[in-house]
Amino acid sequence: MIYLDNGATTYPKPRSVINAVNNAFVNGANPGRGGHNLAMRASELMYSARSTAAEFFGCDDPSRVIFTLNCTTALNTVIKGVLKEGDHVVISSYEHNAVLRPLEKLKERDISYTVARVADGDDEQTLMNFRSAIQSNTKLLVCTHASNVFGVRLPVERLCALFREYGILTCVDSAQTAGIVPIDLKGSAINYLCFAGHKGLYGPMGTGGFVINCGRIPDSLTEGGTGSNSEQSAQPPILPDKFESGTPNLAGIAGLKSGIDFVNSNGIDKTGEREMQLIRNAYKALEKFPHVKLYTELPDSEKNVPVLSFNIDGRDSEEVSEILNKRYNIAVRAGLHCAMLAHKSKNTLNTGTVRIVPSVFSTENDIMRLCSAVYNIK
Amino acid sequence: MIYLDNGATTYPKPRSVINAVNNAFVNGANPGRGGHNLAMRASELMYSARSTAAEFFGCDDPSRVIFTLNCTTALNTVIKGVLKEGDHVVISSYEHNAVLRPLEKLKERDISYTVARVADGDDEQTLMNFRSAIQSNTKLLVCTHASNVFGVRLPVERLCALFREYGILTCVDSAQTAGIVPIDLKGSAINYLCFAGHKGLYGPMGTGGFVINCGRIPDSLTEGGTGSNSEQSAQPPILPDKFESGTPNLAGIAGLKSGIDFVNSNGIDKTGEREMQLIRNAYKALEKFPHVKLYTELPDSEKNVPVLSFNIDGRDSEEVSEILNKRYNIAVRAGLHCAMLAHKSKNTLNTGTVRIVPSVFSTENDIMRLCSAVYNIK
Repeated sequence: MIYLDNGATTYPKPRSVINAVNNAFVNGANPGRGGHNLAMRASELMYSARSTAAEFFGCDDPSRVIFTLNCTTALNTVIKGVLKEGDHVVISSYEHNAVLRPLEKLKERDISYTVARVADGDDEQTLMNFRSAIQSNTKLLVCTHASNVFGVRLPVERLCALFREYGILTCVDSAQTAGIVPIDLKGSAINYLCFAGHKGLYGPMGTGGFVINCGRIPDSLTEGGTGSNSEQSAQPPILPDKFESGTPNLAGIAGLKSGIDFVNSNGIDKTGEREMQLIRNAYKALEKFPHVKLYTELPDSEKNVPVLSFNIDGRDSEEVSEILNKRYNIAVRAGLHCAMLAHKSKNTLNTGTVRIVPSVFSTENDIMRLCSAVYNIK
Repeated sequence: MIYLDNGATTYPKPRSVINAVNNAFVNGANPGRGGHNLAMRASELMYSARSTAAEFFGCDDPSRVIFTLNCTTALNTVIKGVLKEGDHVVISSYEHNAVLRPLEKLKERDISYTVARVADGDDEQTLMNFRSAIQSNTKLLVCTHASNVFGVRLPVERLCALFREYGILTCVDSAQTAGIVPIDLKGSAINYLCFAGHKGLYGPMGTGGFVINCGRIPDSLTEGGTGSNSEQSAQPPILPDKFESGTPNLAGIAGLKSGIDFVNSNGIDKTGEREMQLIRNAYKALEKFPHVKLYTELPDSEKNVPVLSFNIDGRDSEEVSEILNKRYNIAVRAGLHCAMLAHKSKNTLNTGTVRIVPSVFSTENDIMRLCSAVYNIK
């Protein structure tokens, strides 16, 4: 099988990650809940994963790395943890439903939001659009690092710096970029960085988290046992305990640590550039086919991530994906990619798109076979 | 090593569960997010796990089984999803911090709670205590199936039936009982059953969930991409999607399914009775030691689960656990067990307790060696 659905989750996982998950699962007890050797080793593993993630994102303090079930939970925690009744939020026209749907829900608490249009490749225009969306009650900017549908990168550092000038908190969704585009929170205007563990970081599904890069600690979304301050009925304010109630996914987090090690050992710049090259080659082949519709300019490392959407004239994207799967044994994703705003902005809400996303394991041959298959689907 | 900390998490896990986790991790793609073979197989695995859990708990409709990161998240979702400003909640004096702390947090939304005292072994008195705690604005009963510290069982069916008479919703925390005590939701007055996946169900840490056994569907705690209704900005109301936003812990859930299969194949009654016998033997040995303090009557299958707490005169529980670990290579848990209410009710808030919990893999010899070690710690 040719797997080009790495935007949904990377597959296969590195052997080292598979071993790390298995090892933590076979030998792991509950971290932070006991003083015996197994529990202590589990606590050390949690700390080691936290340190690895902190270092990876340029955060000095591992306790500011919070592990969650997924990036969606991280985004919900940050969004709901900083907003109060009457607040306003600015989001981009490329946001995932993981941002849009919590904000729709918060309307019932009199919290409103404005969608600022991203002008592909024109950062000045994008910045102007976002600045125009600021209101006197704007409390938070939530902004994806790159569109999970069209691969368009957003100038997140400049946007966050702009919003910081206005005293507005900033949250970046790096689900599609962590592990592919370098992110350094040192000196960054990003206040909260949310990440998925199972995509570019090569960890297991069911992992993700956020990094708190400012003094404003959000409210907790869940409370419960933390193994700390157990004599108190109030949730402990210390980090990361405040946000990690209940038993954690130890094996998953061990895998995430191993995944980040894997990314580091490959070199993030080199991997990202190689995947961009694959996507550029796909683009160059597909743009020659008259029956294929593309939605962006030729992808470029500064302006895009290795994610490409297309459609075939007269065919639904789901149909194309089914043919690719059944006839050519090629796995891609079709449909709406949980991001209705992005589809709205490019008029693909009715058709969806076929999306291809390579990983470090993808080859030039995979791309050629995909393009040849697409050529034959008319 | 002798592992008697199965109340924190069962260890070791069955070989079949280890294989199921590994298999799902090595071969799994993102369920519900793609139409290709790998994604379809992942969706089938999710459905199969849901069906297995539904059947295990006597629920007709698998879509009413919601998977979460852990039992704590499940409890938070139910509690926060049904309560509104001005509501009142009744909880037991054995509740875990996973119940107490969310309720403490909800005080800021003008939601109050009353702790009803459990009269160990005297169900009539317990029922009276709970009935007295009902107020005109009582909306919800949250009640553990058994104390995670002292092993005392609560008459949850009778309590829930009583509260149902008053039109009050009921939620049971089965973290310490699922897989050890049979639970059948058919015809039960339990509206919401929360469970941990990594204890008596022998699944991985990072799994758990709840079963909705009534028509009142709680509000969602998180919203986001569900792979369904993606063109809509509102969270889909369909189950289980409403509560499962973002990418799930596929490997963990596969392990949970395998764990439930394991419990079924052993026979829950037989296993539970065998573990009770081990705990009774431990009790009978420990009660003869003048330096050991026990907190309950001789454990009984009707009134207890296989969980036993004790202390050694003049020693802190943490110290005892450390000696057991270092000198005897026996893993137990000491301290407060994330359940301050339970410790308050038995005056062990200062010392904590040493807790032993066997699993299906524990032996008579494990218990004898523990008792012999305790005898020697004076």
